[in-house]
Amino acid sequence: MSTGRLEAFSDGVMAVAITLLALNLAFPEPGSRPLAPYLAHQWPAYVAYVISFVTIGIIWINHHASIARLREADHAILAINLLLLMSICVLPFTTHLMASYLTASGGERLAAAVYSGSLLLMGACFSLLNAHTLLGKAHLLTGELSDADRRRLLRRGASGLVPYAIAVAVSLISPYASLAICGAVAAFYALPAANTIST
Amino acid sequence: MSTGRLEAFSDGVMAVAITLLALNLAFPEPGSRPLAPYLAHQWPAYVAYVISFVTIGIIWINHHASIARLREADHAILAINLLLLMSICVLPFTTHLMASYLTASGGERLAAAVYSGSLLLMGACFSLLNAHTLLGKAHLLTGELSDADRRRLLRRGASGLVPYAIAVAVSLISPYASLAICGAVAAFYALPAANTIST
Amino acid sequence: MSTGRLEAFSDGVMAVAITLLALNLAFPEPGSRPLAPYLAHQWPAYVAYVISFVTIGIIWINHHASIARLREADHAILAINLLLLMSICVLPFTTHLMASYLTASGGERLAAAVYSGSLLLMGACFSLLNAHTLLGKAHLLTGELSDADRRRLLRRGASGLVPYAIAVAVSLISPYASLAICGAVAAFYALPAANTIST
Amino acid sequence: MSTGRLEAFSDGVMAVAITLLALNLAFPEPGSRPLAPYLAHQWPAYVAYVISFVTIGIIWINHHASIARLREADHAILAINLLLLMSICVLPFTTHLMASYLTASGGERLAAAVYSGSLLLMGACFSLLNAHTLLGKAHLLTGELSDADRRRLLRRGASGLVPYAIAVAVSLISPYASLAICGAVAAFYALPAANTIST
Repeated sequence: MSTGRLEAFSDGVMAVAITLLALNLAFPEPGSRPLAPYLAHQWPAYVAYVISFVTIGIIWINHHASIARLREADHAILAINLLLLMSICVLPFTTHLMASYLTASGGERLAAAVYSGSLLLMGACFSLLNAHTLLGKAHLLTGELSDADRRRLLRRGASGLVPYAIAVAVSLISPYASLAICGAVAAFYALPAANTIST
Repeated sequence: MSTGRLEAFSDGVMAVAITLLALNLAFPEPGSRPLAPYLAHQWPAYVAYVISFVTIGIIWINHHASIARLREADHAILAINLLLLMSICVLPFTTHLMASYLTASGGERLAAAVYSGSLLLMGACFSLLNAHTLLGKAHLLTGELSDADRRRLLRRGASGLVPYAIAVAVSLISPYASLAICGAVAAFYALPAANTIST
Repeated sequence: MSTGRLEAFSDGVMAVAITLLALNLAFPEPGSRPLAPYLAHQWPAYVAYVISFVTIGIIWINHHASIARLREADHAILAINLLLLMSICVLPFTTHLMASYLTASGGERLAAAVYSGSLLLMGACFSLLNAHTLLGKAHLLTGELSDADRRRLLRRGASGLVPYAIAVAVSLISPYASLAICGAVAAFYALPAANTIST
Repeated sequence: MSTGRLEAFSDGVMAVAITLLALNLAFPEPGSRPLAPYLAHQWPAYVAYVISFVTIGIIWINHHASIARLREADHAILAINLLLLMSICVLPFTTHLMASYLTASGGERLAAAVYSGSLLLMGACFSLLNAHTLLGKAHLLTGELSDADRRRLLRRGASGLVPYAIAVAVSLISPYASLAICGAVAAFYALPAANTIST
């Protein structure tokens, strides 16, 4: 399959998933209770919205870079890409879960573990996609990649999983710390510096 | 109509439908009941999510292969394609229905029949699309297809309906077995072997 | 603006709107009441789903034909196109409204009037788009159109509004008859014959 | 990154966001209360739907014009574009909030401030995107822009923020006046005259 339609479909799925994140923002029925404190109390939803939005956005940028290295897609790439999209599409759910439970007493650790775990899963699917395109499928690639380049790209992909694994572990102690790690990862990759390294 | 825009619109609809599947995942209000057993109890929703996601993904891949054989689309292809999309768009609903009733006592057989029936309908629409493009519309095709190729492609399309028909029948006895068949079909087509056969 | 991106955006909006139609399908909580009669009672939702889906699908096909006649889009075309998309995006709402009230005693006439009225509005926006591209903007068109062709296309566009206007009027007497007219329009344009006339 | 995929993804997000606006339209359960007065009472939802729809539509048109000036996108443009999309995706939420509270006694000022504030934020992100593409990144641009052109485009972008800033301030006095200002901005940019100036 040409990579053009693979990109178009993936872009469509990511565009819908990233937009659905905002469906988790809520407000009370008029007259039921004061609006200002309610909206202020919803701060975890806003923080989670920004973190998940930026994270999906970064995955979209990196997905483009990965697919751009491909000349065409074989069945394994389509299947792994589908796995990646499947993990992206659950993010509105896990984001909503985490935001709703962050300040609760009961369930907050599990919710944070599910959220950071879903990000870890997404990162793992993306690393798998990268590894598959970089290892032993030279005829599918558009250009020449030196072994050093391959190793660097693979290491970069794998190293991105470490913070999410830590975030899962930390969620059992502090959901706030877990969320902070996920936010730091998003901020790191969104900043220009991270991009400079990748080029 | 050029097939480019047909693909773009179909991709868009399938991308939205596949992403809406995750809207069926739910969690309780914080403080209302324990989170962990609730999430564990929701396992049919996760299983159904994966099966429906992979199934739509496979249809997307096969749809691409079918349209790639076409040079342009006539009115009948547009109409049949619309039928196919209509059957895909109800999958979030039937998936949700099946997942919600699987473990219930009352309605579970009907729910499984509706779910496997919606997959059968989708498969039938896809076979109809394939049959229309392969039979007697040679001027619409991009390349030459031998009669043996046509027969093989038609047989492949039709044979994909058999498991779903069985799943509908089985649902009246065991919803679990019906769901297992639908899952097995998805797994079969997602594995590289099935693809090798198709090439 | 090139028509490519106009088409891409319009396709995206129509793809989302057509997919959201299925969000109106509902089922009861397991254990709350019997599933089979509930689903059977929902028949207006299925009928309305099919009619609205086919109608948006036809508008998508015709939209493509209209835009294909354009070399580029001026500001007026963008603005009218936006109006058209705005009228399409309310269809999931009006479809849901009509389906929910069709069998009710109270509000059913208003609901049918709103539904057929929203289809009339969509048709009017589409006729406006067509009229604007066909009248006096020759430099924006890709090919030559004879005056007879123009008149025929304009008449065709305007004549499509008549059944919807009748459906609005009829809704005040019988919501069922109004819905039947909307369904007949969809069936007429979906059949190959209508297309043959248009070529 | 080529601007093609940037546009495709941005178009997808904006198409979903603009379509989700209609999810805020509601009606009562049949039999619960009279339909006509309920629908009439919902007028702020219709007004807000039109204003937000036109506003996103205008941003889409202007986004296209901005990206068309670019030869390729650097990391900063991707990041700012993501910010812009993030601000667009919250519009269905803030539109719903404003429409629900406009006629309430309590919270209506805050809701109008949040709504006009979200439009101000979107405008600010768009001005930032424009400023980044126009200032000092000449090698990313497709054509030559005179300094006068740059200044004019920057001024235009910045001046678009003034009415929204006024709408935020006015919302603390009158939510209706604030909404009217937002609507006037949408109407101004939708009219052909504004476009003529911009060419």
